Amino acid sequence: MASRELLIEDGSLCLIYFDDKRKYIVRASRGAVFHTDKGVIRLGDLIGSPYGSTHRTSIGIKYLVLKPLLVDIVLHGFKRKTQIIYPKDLASIIIFSGVSSGSIVVEAGTGSGVLTAFLAYLVKPDGRVYSYDVSEDNIRVARRNLELAELLPYVTFKVKDIREGIDEQDVDAVFLDMPDPWNALKASYNSLKSSGILVAFMPTIVQVGKIIKALYRHGGFIKPLIFETLLREYKPSVDELRPRTRMIGHTGYVLVTRKILFNSLQGQNN
Amino acid sequence: MASRELLIEDGSLCLIYFDDKRKYIVRASRGAVFHTDKGVIRLGDLIGSPYGSTHRTSIGIKYLVLKPLLVDIVLHGFKRKTQIIYPKDLASIIIFSGVSSGSIVVEAGTGSGVLTAFLAYLVKPDGRVYSYDVSEDNIRVARRNLELAELLPYVTFKVKDIREGIDEQDVDAVFLDMPDPWNALKASYNSLKSSGILVAFMPTIVQVGKIIKALYRHGGFIKPLIFETLLREYKPSVDELRPRTRMIGHTGYVLVTRKILFNSLQGQNN
Amino acid sequence: MASRELLIEDGSLCLIYFDDKRKYIVRASRGAVFHTDKGVIRLGDLIGSPYGSTHRTSIGIKYLVLKPLLVDIVLHGFKRKTQIIYPKDLASIIIFSGVSSGSIVVEAGTGSGVLTAFLAYLVKPDGRVYSYDVSEDNIRVARRNLELAELLPYVTFKVKDIREGIDEQDVDAVFLDMPDPWNALKASYNSLKSSGILVAFMPTIVQVGKIIKALYRHGGFIKPLIFETLLREYKPSVDELRPRTRMIGHTGYVLVTRKILFNSLQGQNN
Amino acid sequence: MASRELLIEDGSLCLIYFDDKRKYIVRASRGAVFHTDKGVIRLGDLIGSPYGSTHRTSIGIKYLVLKPLLVDIVLHGFKRKTQIIYPKDLASIIIFSGVSSGSIVVEAGTGSGVLTAFLAYLVKPDGRVYSYDVSEDNIRVARRNLELAELLPYVTFKVKDIREGIDEQDVDAVFLDMPDPWNALKASYNSLKSSGILVAFMPTIVQVGKIIKALYRHGGFIKPLIFETLLREYKPSVDELRPRTRMIGHTGYVLVTRKILFNSLQGQNN
Repeated sequence: MASRELLIEDGSLCLIYFDDKRKYIVRASRGAVFHTDKGVIRLGDLIGSPYGSTHRTSIGIKYLVLKPLLVDIVLHGFKRKTQIIYPKDLASIIIFSGVSSGSIVVEAGTGSGVLTAFLAYLVKPDGRVYSYDVSEDNIRVARRNLELAELLPYVTFKVKDIREGIDEQDVDAVFLDMPDPWNALKASYNSLKSSGILVAFMPTIVQVGKIIKALYRHGGFIKPLIFETLLREYKPSVDELRPRTRMIGHTGYVLVTRKILFNSLQGQNN
Repeated sequence: MASRELLIEDGSLCLIYFDDKRKYIVRASRGAVFHTDKGVIRLGDLIGSPYGSTHRTSIGIKYLVLKPLLVDIVLHGFKRKTQIIYPKDLASIIIFSGVSSGSIVVEAGTGSGVLTAFLAYLVKPDGRVYSYDVSEDNIRVARRNLELAELLPYVTFKVKDIREGIDEQDVDAVFLDMPDPWNALKASYNSLKSSGILVAFMPTIVQVGKIIKALYRHGGFIKPLIFETLLREYKPSVDELRPRTRMIGHTGYVLVTRKILFNSLQGQNN
Repeated sequence: MASRELLIEDGSLCLIYFDDKRKYIVRASRGAVFHTDKGVIRLGDLIGSPYGSTHRTSIGIKYLVLKPLLVDIVLHGFKRKTQIIYPKDLASIIIFSGVSSGSIVVEAGTGSGVLTAFLAYLVKPDGRVYSYDVSEDNIRVARRNLELAELLPYVTFKVKDIREGIDEQDVDAVFLDMPDPWNALKASYNSLKSSGILVAFMPTIVQVGKIIKALYRHGGFIKPLIFETLLREYKPSVDELRPRTRMIGHTGYVLVTRKILFNSLQGQNN
Repeated sequence: MASRELLIEDGSLCLIYFDDKRKYIVRASRGAVFHTDKGVIRLGDLIGSPYGSTHRTSIGIKYLVLKPLLVDIVLHGFKRKTQIIYPKDLASIIIFSGVSSGSIVVEAGTGSGVLTAFLAYLVKPDGRVYSYDVSEDNIRVARRNLELAELLPYVTFKVKDIREGIDEQDVDAVFLDMPDPWNALKASYNSLKSSGILVAFMPTIVQVGKIIKALYRHGGFIKPLIFETLLREYKPSVDELRPRTRMIGHTGYVLVTRKILFNSLQGQNN
């Protein structure tokens, strides 16, 4: 089984790990080199080594080669065109949307493809992600990112304004990460299967206020769950165990709701 | 495709939704009834209705029938023997462990089977979860819960003390949710494939201090990521938008690290 | 000096302390009794005992008698007509307003008099608190509360709508704890001395949005500091040190700004 | 009354305010100049202007002159020898300690004198702060800082190790901001009046664990209140209202307890 192999092959993705701050995604490849401020790494030399082994750069600095998780690939290998969604938010978006192997989902906008990648990772091998963005540039970058993550086969990109309608019908979930998600409610409702999930991610509380108002006016959704998550990292020290001094204090708000049949609405909006 | 069907069948799991506070997991079933403080629900009557439709109890109170997500089944359908891991923690555990379809993972202890269920949900159909607990009672409850969630085929339960060793070799990840995870480090190291993931979940900071010390003494793992997450829910009101007055202020700390080959250790512990 | 005395006198305020959950404010008084679910306390018997001593109720349950701080009197002795401001918010309001002995300050509304009490405590003996409320009932309750806290001499209550104007001139600070603080900006500006402090406390983010807009439209104030504080309590246990499971997730938002001369405004609002 | 004056006099402290990021504490003074990256400020020119007025630097950049609060003087005028206590922590320390005009308090260590300044500000004019530090250097810096804040008359500095005993008796409160506060418990107990307040401020959770253990072993104190506070600032924008992306995630833990008479201890430690 693929996940059992321990040895790095030609073409394998690798996480080069010097320390917490210096991590890089590379592909083992005969003849290729990778330059870091700690010296040069000959990427062909990695082939045949086990993941988890230690190596040295051209100037003798040690590093580890680890098998990258998707979260590593996204954080250290993806090209970023736009503000990306943080792992803490991806995590809660995923768990409250119920997406899993086989799901058919829609997202807008594509951005740099971070959420796209995690959705593809979950729906594979039989599900599909339809990812809309009005920017061809975004989709070009996202496509390259998804290719790096080996998740391109599960995604269909569309250069299209989702506010004008979603082509897919009876989808399991719609994810909105766009400036004005309230303008995509009608398209989302029409595309979702009954009982399907709508998720919106918004940086400002002003947007949250607007989508709540639009949801109640539109009808056809249950009372939304709205939350933000905070991830607080600790210094892993025996003698000085404590949260890190600085943290990310805000990324965005998540809204989750579910489509219901239209004649089912009465009394749900309080 | 299974996820496309919209109509409730005999035997389908349903989420009965009166409001935020009153949600129930039931199975549509001819002849069966379900009693609530809002009246009786005839579970056979649900059959043939679409998910997302509205119904009325014997005393005329309206409710919705939704297609339950795993998070609904766990929160509203699982029997709880023990303190369960919250969705916010499941979410971050899952994203930082990289578990996905095909993964082979080990967890201890089973508890009520909540993490077991999410792991099974992710590794299916070809992966497997090996779940250890010293309590037969816990495993009995967890088995029933996993059966409800239709995830039992992907799990092997073991009434065994994980501190005495893990039977499985080269596993992708080990999850420790037990009072003394530091006593399972050696067994975890021996079971993990190189570059594999170790996750521990601990309610108290005292435990975090102990596992850090034990990790550094044991060696063979990269510097751990340690964090806690806070989920802050908002009142979905147009005119009174604000966080809810009360929140869960603490559940536990998550530690994530990765196995490295033993001769790779020098200089990783600072 | 008054604060040096250690013995309880006739008429002294006392904090009866059974445990964290059971604290009461009483006044030592010959012949009086206080009923608790742990038995009767004869309030005359406290006279002559030192603060910090242990006593027993009529049924033999032990309790401590402590010298109450203002925060004890407010939390355990004040009658509450309205939602009160929490200590964590009082603390930050006080520190960012710079109020101290001798300050002349205005607040609206009075509510139950909690902020009034802390302001009076700080401005005494030579300063003064002018407290406005449209409800005579609120002021009646607040007056009784301030009397209990022995702070009445430093407060002038006014049954008046602050939106129609503030009688006092050149005040050091104005505190707004009312549903529509934006409607009191003009009155506040006219009452404040130049460089004086304006503080508003608001439960909802909708209110924050409205006051920001009104501030920028009105002019005459520096860019506001807006924040919320979270207080996270820990279980004081050697073996199970951890944050408490439940916490107050939200009370309100604090806005602090300062009056500047009107011709000074240009370029401050970005 | 001093706080009524609106005009800047020779020798008045001023807060020079260019914007949120650029604030300076200066003293209006004939003939003196202050250099900034926005040009030179002639400090004599401020004399006679009202606080809250706008001025221009030598190169024409506008700035405001505000009357500084103590929090401004501490943050923008104090020389820092050591990590200082943040306003959010000062605020909660102050409110839960009940210190006010007339209180006699002890603190160790002095550090840069930030807590010293706030304590002096509260106890004046009749109370007193006794501030201990083993470092003469710290005290030299703190003395200069307190002088700037015009609070020196209310403070007695002592170059002495508080662990060896506190000279003052029957004090109202003791504040410990030192690496090993558990070693100062006995000295604190002996110095405090009965029912007096003990506060400790500690950056790491390891220290919290140690002081709890020491407190329970020592006896003579009620069950401590332990907490941390988080201050979350918002961007004051009408259209993009949201918390700031980065925040201070941790400063320290606060412990507050009260001395009780020694024969009063039984049953308080659970």
